[in-house]
Amino acid sequence: TIDGERLWGTLMETAKIGGTAKGGIRRLTMSEEDKRVRDWFKAACEAAGCTVTVDTIGNMFARREGKNPDLPPICMGSHLDTQPTGGKFDGILGVLAGLEAIRSLDAIGYQTNAPIEVINWTNEEGARFTPAMMASGAFAGVFTEEYILSRTDREGTTFADAMDAIGYRGDTPLGGRKLGAMFELHIEQGPILEAEDRMIGVVTGVQSIRWFELTITGAAAHAGATPMPARRDALVGAARAIEAVEAVALAHAPDGVGTVGILECRPGSTNVVPGEVFLTIDLRHPLDEVVARMEEDLRARLAEIQGRLEFGLERIWVSPAVHFDPVLIGHVREAAERLGFRHRDIASGAGHDAVYTARICPTTMVFVPCKEGISHNEAEESTFEQCAAGTQVLLNAVLAYDAT
Amino acid sequence: TIDGERLWGTLMETAKIGGTAKGGIRRLTMSEEDKRVRDWFKAACEAAGCTVTVDTIGNMFARREGKNPDLPPICMGSHLDTQPTGGKFDGILGVLAGLEAIRSLDAIGYQTNAPIEVINWTNEEGARFTPAMMASGAFAGVFTEEYILSRTDREGTTFADAMDAIGYRGDTPLGGRKLGAMFELHIEQGPILEAEDRMIGVVTGVQSIRWFELTITGAAAHAGATPMPARRDALVGAARAIEAVEAVALAHAPDGVGTVGILECRPGSTNVVPGEVFLTIDLRHPLDEVVARMEEDLRARLAEIQGRLEFGLERIWVSPAVHFDPVLIGHVREAAERLGFRHRDIASGAGHDAVYTARICPTTMVFVPCKEGISHNEAEESTFEQCAAGTQVLLNAVLAYDAT
Ligand SMILES: NC(=O)NCCC(=O)O
Ligand SMILES: NC(=O)NCCC(=O)O
Repeated sequence: TIDGERLWGTLMETAKIGGTAKGGIRRLTMSEEDKRVRDWFKAACEAAGCTVTVDTIGNMFARREGKNPDLPPICMGSHLDTQPTGGKFDGILGVLAGLEAIRSLDAIGYQTNAPIEVINWTNEEGARFTPAMMASGAFAGVFTEEYILSRTDREGTTFADAMDAIGYRGDTPLGGRKLGAMFELHIEQGPILEAEDRMIGVVTGVQSIRWFELTITGAAAHAGATPMPARRDALVGAARAIEAVEAVALAHAPDGVGTVGILECRPGSTNVVPGEVFLTIDLRHPLDEVVARMEEDLRARLAEIQGRLEFGLERIWVSPAVHFDPVLIGHVREAAERLGFRHRDIASGAGHDAVYTARICPTTMVFVPCKEGISHNEAEESTFEQCAAGTQVLLNAVLAYDAT
Repeated sequence: TIDGERLWGTLMETAKIGGTAKGGIRRLTMSEEDKRVRDWFKAACEAAGCTVTVDTIGNMFARREGKNPDLPPICMGSHLDTQPTGGKFDGILGVLAGLEAIRSLDAIGYQTNAPIEVINWTNEEGARFTPAMMASGAFAGVFTEEYILSRTDREGTTFADAMDAIGYRGDTPLGGRKLGAMFELHIEQGPILEAEDRMIGVVTGVQSIRWFELTITGAAAHAGATPMPARRDALVGAARAIEAVEAVALAHAPDGVGTVGILECRPGSTNVVPGEVFLTIDLRHPLDEVVARMEEDLRARLAEIQGRLEFGLERIWVSPAVHFDPVLIGHVREAAERLGFRHRDIASGAGHDAVYTARICPTTMVFVPCKEGISHNEAEESTFEQCAAGTQVLLNAVLAYDAT
């Protein structure tokens, strides 16, 4: 059995790295804070007897040998990066639970058949660099290494430069090897488990996601001397675009969601009619064909509101719906059952690295509740008991799978 | 008569200081570029025999003595700061025309009765620090020195620190002395003079302006896992606010204008429902009572769209409509007439430092056309002939006034 106190201790200790005044974390991919948590993770895993390797886009693999080193590793893990104002659990729980599982195995001298690996995937959040889950995606062959290295943040810094700045370009080649299975523990990031008083979510899959960038070009003009009819106000166009995104989501209720998360308005002066706006659009629905229709709907609405502005819409990411492996799902459900935790099957609204590992190995996820479903927010919260329960289910499912 | 070539030379030479790839200027108040153009201006004025003093908020006064040094000075000038993507003429023409007037007087050894001063007012644009025209306003006693020094830019830098960083805190006390008159030459920043083929605008006054800051607070949430009805999306609220500002202006057509010029969206990540938005609102109309009604209208509309968001509206600036001095207006009209320039009376949609000097001394303005009325844009353009014509009218009006 895992040690809940020890697990909680690592959660609270690492939460200080990039910790914010409001109790959250700001630990953007390849930032100084990311370096510090990576250093911490490497040291902790090595202290637990693991060998840590880092691939050429910064993914970290902490390996504990099995009786049969030739078997492909059974993997646990998630990500240690956060949103700009993120919480203490999103991603982090999944990595530290993997570490806790290894420490627990060490404590009783248990040796698995297959090697175990705990993975810290680079830039799952997609906050500093887009898209999300890009490094697990690259590991799975969905993106090329060149594509990842050349992605830029909103300041124009490339991923490659940011990675080199903190010294986390490793020498292990990207991907190209077999994983035996992937189990990812995560907080739900939605309200269902808490509302139904269930301790464990048996995750069956992840919904369909598409991301877009919209650049609106109008003409900068004087706010006092330019009559309303003469304006080509890019921000007024953006307002209509934001409402179009909302309308698209509502037209596909109750499951469709649509979000404008980033908006940059230029030149940005009180008395200048904005000449250019950049914004991002995130559309989701459980069904791929509905997200495709949402995109069509969005394009039609944008064409209607464009007027004398230029709308440049670019689709930058398509992540189809994923159904996890029935066998692994069974192991998770059984572990929850045996441990006496109330559980239910659940679909994920958030994307996860498990989405991409599912393309190359049997994959599933374990969810635990989080308070009021709040996530991507400094107020994100899960309890000691919930974190411990999820970690125990994770370990039991891994050991059950290893025994087969 | 003024030397149009020499004037144009100074316009093009200083345009290099902060010059942009698109032919505009980026020379924000108290930036490194502002320092360089201030150094240039000081040196040029001293070379023309003027004494240059700088007051405690960076306003620069280049003085050429008159026959009677005890008379209050007749002033020309405007500002050398620009918008983030500003043009080569807005403000700059008014200052360099003053310099050209002095050089022309020097060339023929003409001594005026009253001293002449050419003024470079600090931060007319209101781009880096709000409000606009803040330093002429402080000179006129509308704002305290403490208020000015404590204004912060969007990065949180105070005006005082920015000023000290470039070494332009002078030792001349702010205000507290009499100006004899103020004549400000400026480009129209609107389309009327060009459309009617007039060379000179005889400016009768400036319209009424109010500025606001709106902070919208919602709740940051996960873009994938948060159903639409559960959201408190600050950016969706901002979209409705932008459309409310537009609606307020249109409800007071044809003269009402309303603009959201700055918008900051936090935390700013593709997959995070925005939790907070900051934006600015600029409302204008020729009549004070109509701008007051526009503000009421705005408040009512914001209350209606607020929903479960918090809207914090703060009015940060009120600049009532101004009517310039009839005697000075007469001198400008007569100068244009005598020089044979087609002219018309015109009201200004833009605010100017003349708005505040009008509170403490007889004040008026001279407008020249600019291409298609485009301003606060790198494409801003006036011709050699237009700049020279305006400068000649300026000088003739000043000399006519000096002779009375
Ligand atoms: N788990 C999580 O918040 N992932 C971010 C990727 C996304 O769903 O946008
Ligand atoms: N002339 C000019 O552009 N002034 C800026 C002040 C304003 O009108 O907002």
